[in-house]
Amino acid sequence: MKKASIISVGNEILSGRTVDANCAYLSARLLSMGIPVVSAYTSRDDTEAIVRSLELACADADVVVTTGGLGPTEDDLTRNAVAEFLGVELEIRPGLVAELERFFVRRGLRMPERNRIQAYVPAGAEPIENSLGTAPGIRVETKGKLLFVLPGVPSEMKGMFEGSVVGQVEQFGGGQFVVVKRLRCFGAGESTIAEMVGGIMERGRNPLVNCTVNQDGITLDIVATSENREMAAEMAAKDEEVLRARLGDLVFGTGEQILGEVVGQELSRQGKTLAVAESCTGGLVAKLLTDVAGASRYFRCGWVTYDNRAKMAELGVGAELIERYGAVSEEVSRAMAAGARREAGVDFAIGITGIAGPTGATEQKPVGLVYISVDFHQGCDTKRCTFPQDRASVRRRAALTALNMVRLKLKA
Amino acid sequence: MKKASIISVGNEILSGRTVDANCAYLSARLLSMGIPVVSAYTSRDDTEAIVRSLELACADADVVVTTGGLGPTEDDLTRNAVAEFLGVELEIRPGLVAELERFFVRRGLRMPERNRIQAYVPAGAEPIENSLGTAPGIRVETKGKLLFVLPGVPSEMKGMFEGSVVGQVEQFGGGQFVVVKRLRCFGAGESTIAEMVGGIMERGRNPLVNCTVNQDGITLDIVATSENREMAAEMAAKDEEVLRARLGDLVFGTGEQILGEVVGQELSRQGKTLAVAESCTGGLVAKLLTDVAGASRYFRCGWVTYDNRAKMAELGVGAELIERYGAVSEEVSRAMAAGARREAGVDFAIGITGIAGPTGATEQKPVGLVYISVDFHQGCDTKRCTFPQDRASVRRRAALTALNMVRLKLKA
Repeated sequence: MKKASIISVGNEILSGRTVDANCAYLSARLLSMGIPVVSAYTSRDDTEAIVRSLELACADADVVVTTGGLGPTEDDLTRNAVAEFLGVELEIRPGLVAELERFFVRRGLRMPERNRIQAYVPAGAEPIENSLGTAPGIRVETKGKLLFVLPGVPSEMKGMFEGSVVGQVEQFGGGQFVVVKRLRCFGAGESTIAEMVGGIMERGRNPLVNCTVNQDGITLDIVATSENREMAAEMAAKDEEVLRARLGDLVFGTGEQILGEVVGQELSRQGKTLAVAESCTGGLVAKLLTDVAGASRYFRCGWVTYDNRAKMAELGVGAELIERYGAVSEEVSRAMAAGARREAGVDFAIGITGIAGPTGATEQKPVGLVYISVDFHQGCDTKRCTFPQDRASVRRRAALTALNMVRLKLKA
Repeated sequence: MKKASIISVGNEILSGRTVDANCAYLSARLLSMGIPVVSAYTSRDDTEAIVRSLELACADADVVVTTGGLGPTEDDLTRNAVAEFLGVELEIRPGLVAELERFFVRRGLRMPERNRIQAYVPAGAEPIENSLGTAPGIRVETKGKLLFVLPGVPSEMKGMFEGSVVGQVEQFGGGQFVVVKRLRCFGAGESTIAEMVGGIMERGRNPLVNCTVNQDGITLDIVATSENREMAAEMAAKDEEVLRARLGDLVFGTGEQILGEVVGQELSRQGKTLAVAESCTGGLVAKLLTDVAGASRYFRCGWVTYDNRAKMAELGVGAELIERYGAVSEEVSRAMAAGARREAGVDFAIGITGIAGPTGATEQKPVGLVYISVDFHQGCDTKRCTFPQDRASVRRRAALTALNMVRLKLKA
């Protein structure tokens, strides 16, 4: 199987000013063409350092893509490094000079002398056209390896990759197909999920099953590789079936689906409506629901009753409930949900109250304690949660847990 | 000058599923401590590949920080790779087992057997405490190099870096001091700001002034370098003064301050209260305000009146207004703000209505059209905005613009 390596060039990445999203883009695209990226290097704007990255990447892989360092300023050194790596000189290409001049003319400008450097290409290499900017790319085949040198501006890089690189890489690729199936899970930790799925996650297996955790839950990627596209798809589908059987309700979606979207689709399908009453999550549940276009079909109204007076005035939560049990209590979360359902005239309503921290805790009620209620025609479910992390995580976990409760309710 | 190198471990990065933001965070923080990052490596989940990255990084730098691959599953191989790199065995630390067990007990769970692997640390290395998750980090000094091994979950990584790594790196540092002053701006584009600040942004200058744009506004970093800490601080302070004079009200904060926080502080200082009535932003304004701990001092109540019925029932927006001008209109945004101020009994109330897209546009009302009103004792200000981008950006720009209107109102 052919492999790829990526080099990102630029001090702006190594100083933390820029997050290197180019690398993720290229990795995903190369993988989808059956060429997994096996390593990535970030080099500073220094000829020697770039040359060394080229050596390392070419030792790792058959296809190497670099981004960055092709601009007209003194810290743009990738073209020099490529020439040095190849052991050749940079030579000016009159055709590129003319193209550069046209680029400026179209904008009513005269080409600054400085941009002339962008018409230089290592001897024996081919330029790659850049229709969006001034920096042409470079393509070179050396010792059986394909090297593509692209600019760092994301729109230019993507345009050139899709327009010029993809076709050549596919020809070069050599018959391997990779199908990635992604299962999105919520409701259990990474280790629980690993135990449930068992040996299917073994390294070296094909399909390879990878597990990643982020704030929105756990993602399982099934990466199936085969010389036959249908076969790869079949292998991935088979693993998906196994994983779904083992994980059951923990799987909430596939691909890039998010909980708010899945809940919305199901509400929409069932013709049900939803309202939310939030205290500690402060609008986050409503925000997650309305992140999805078309949410007005099922989402009616949200209240952020941050203040106890608002809980009483807007949702009819009894003062005596707050006094007896405290604003952070099962009783108040239930009253909030019931009030929201009544007030909005909807099928389901969420009520959330808790202590997001870092302050506000008492001995009985620690930071991270959250009560979540879902009120519906036949009753009201409540979950008492204690989330272990910082304010932002507590809020996010609480909001997602609420959406997940509605999801499971809609399944029941 | 001491140098650093960063290693990111994980197939999720090399398959493009995750953008490696950890690397940018660590790079910026290390630079601010006077330790520039000179290289970065991304390794797949493979012991040999991680070992090779460790060798390369330790050859480049004095401080090496790795993230990722410390979880409890079979594809978490960083601790094995570190042991192999050091030429030592992994050994179990009973103290860590006890801590892991406590972590689960606090959440009312029994520790899965699988998590036991996280109590293993290479012989001679020290564990780094992780108060937010199960994966302890590893710290080891080898051949004059400092190696820190951190988990990949950003909140855990950051907590451990700030809590345990920073102090040790500062001690280890040496000689050069870098002071970074960050000014946060809102209300103008990058090129306008660049024109306003003029030559101060020249490359090669010390302090170096860098400008970055993100969804929350524009950030100017003043990076002053000197062999003397006070001198660096003085240089940065002088530039800050110049920039503030040139940018005026566009500067809303410093450091990591966000608009919601700045607005909250000023409301709190003036003893004023706020409520919000949102349609297209769907809870995002309330969420941004309550991202800040202690928001209950000034934030009373929020309404997400996504449905016209809710606008009428909850905020008293007249049916005839909606009929005559449409739900997305200056009149309705004013009525929403006025209703929210009256209903919540607060000093300021925001009313937002607009078309976040991608659907819902008409010939007169394009996607991105948003009306934002701020109602207060003496009247009501309204801004008509047309934001050019996708749904998420329209919502975010609208929410931030609303907060910025309140900020400027509080200054007046």
